[in-house]
Amino acid sequence: MSEFSKIKTKLLAEQVEEDIYNYIIKTDLNVGDKLPNEFELAEKFGVGRSTIREAVKLLESDGILEVRRGSGTYVVNKMPKDIDPLGLSAIEDKMALAMDLADLRILLEPGIAEMAALNATEEDIKVLYELCDIIEEKIAKDENYIEYDIKFHTYVAKSSKNMVVEQLIPIIDTAVMMFVNVTHKQLTEETMMTHRAVVDAIAERDIVGAKTAMMMHMTYNRNLIKKLMKESKNQ
Amino acid sequence: MSEFSKIKTKLLAEQVEEDIYNYIIKTDLNVGDKLPNEFELAEKFGVGRSTIREAVKLLESDGILEVRRGSGTYVVNKMPKDIDPLGLSAIEDKMALAMDLADLRILLEPGIAEMAALNATEEDIKVLYELCDIIEEKIAKDENYIEYDIKFHTYVAKSSKNMVVEQLIPIIDTAVMMFVNVTHKQLTEETMMTHRAVVDAIAERDIVGAKTAMMMHMTYNRNLIKKLMKESKNQ
Repeated sequence: MSEFSKIKTKLLAEQVEEDIYNYIIKTDLNVGDKLPNEFELAEKFGVGRSTIREAVKLLESDGILEVRRGSGTYVVNKMPKDIDPLGLSAIEDKMALAMDLADLRILLEPGIAEMAALNATEEDIKVLYELCDIIEEKIAKDENYIEYDIKFHTYVAKSSKNMVVEQLIPIIDTAVMMFVNVTHKQLTEETMMTHRAVVDAIAERDIVGAKTAMMMHMTYNRNLIKKLMKESKNQ
Repeated sequence: MSEFSKIKTKLLAEQVEEDIYNYIIKTDLNVGDKLPNEFELAEKFGVGRSTIREAVKLLESDGILEVRRGSGTYVVNKMPKDIDPLGLSAIEDKMALAMDLADLRILLEPGIAEMAALNATEEDIKVLYELCDIIEEKIAKDENYIEYDIKFHTYVAKSSKNMVVEQLIPIIDTAVMMFVNVTHKQLTEETMMTHRAVVDAIAERDIVGAKTAMMMHMTYNRNLIKKLMKESKNQ
């Protein structure tokens, strides 16, 4: 293979590495789940099997995938280390982690919604309403909306104009998606209602309303986690 | 130089790299401050000048130091990237950052003290009282106690038994020390009083008392930052 071909293969493999990683996240494959085989992946991403093999090697060295001889390729970790600064992927009891994340968000996010009601710009409010629309459309089509749910909370944090909060909320809320997506496709009615209530209150500069609407949103979430936790203990 | 000597020099340089870094933190050198010259550093750490030069090179590649020809070696960043996961060292307006950190801590730490009052073990309470003692001794001797102040807040977080809080508080409180140590050696009376009030309430399982004592502690801190902020704007 010429040097130029080698470089081209490498760039393509890196692109496919990212495609496979996004596929794992979007189709909600979990740790322990098996990846489709080389043929299927090659077809899905429109590349050759050798490129798939290269990309899988890269994801293996990232610690995301593990190739088990004669068995297949498995997801062993969903979070590259550099996007898990709190080291939460190492925590084994995911239900307890879900609860601890919920408790932390209850401390933080109502106060952040309050700051957003004080500091959001008109442009911020427009984006927040757009995110409500997108999430409602996705729910109507029974599609996964968690990516936009994270964007919604990240945007409320951005609207707070607190520089530290803006950095912190994406980390915490991405952790919720990555590690403890236990409430997936549940609470859709409650989510639509409370998201809109938060944005309406921010738009009206109603700081108590924004805080309490976010608290209500977080409480629905926490109650469901608590219920699931009890059920998993009774099994 | 033999291979073995090379390896020995490298290990020594890495050790001295850490010593110099700790020296920067402990003597409270700030970004823009000049480091003592090679002779002084060699004497201080009991190694040769070539080792100092190696260690300085390592700190230069870490982005901590910058060697300016004919002028000296300067601190250009106090936080290695891997211990600044929130990327706060890049924020230029340190007074605004101090305020935003204070506001975030007010959202978090009273609720964490409440959790600690519920969940701290007897051993945790013993350690918290010991940390109060150490901080009071340091204040009596007019020594820098900020390292123990961070340990105190980290230990309250550990006592909460919330796994995410335990990871998060050291990051936030270390950021306070690293980037916005603006209230240094002030509020010593108030710190001693409110730290003890927090621990007494935790020991008595008085959850409202723990929360309000921590809120009082955070409020003294925030009020001082607000005062300093106003003064710096009036200059």
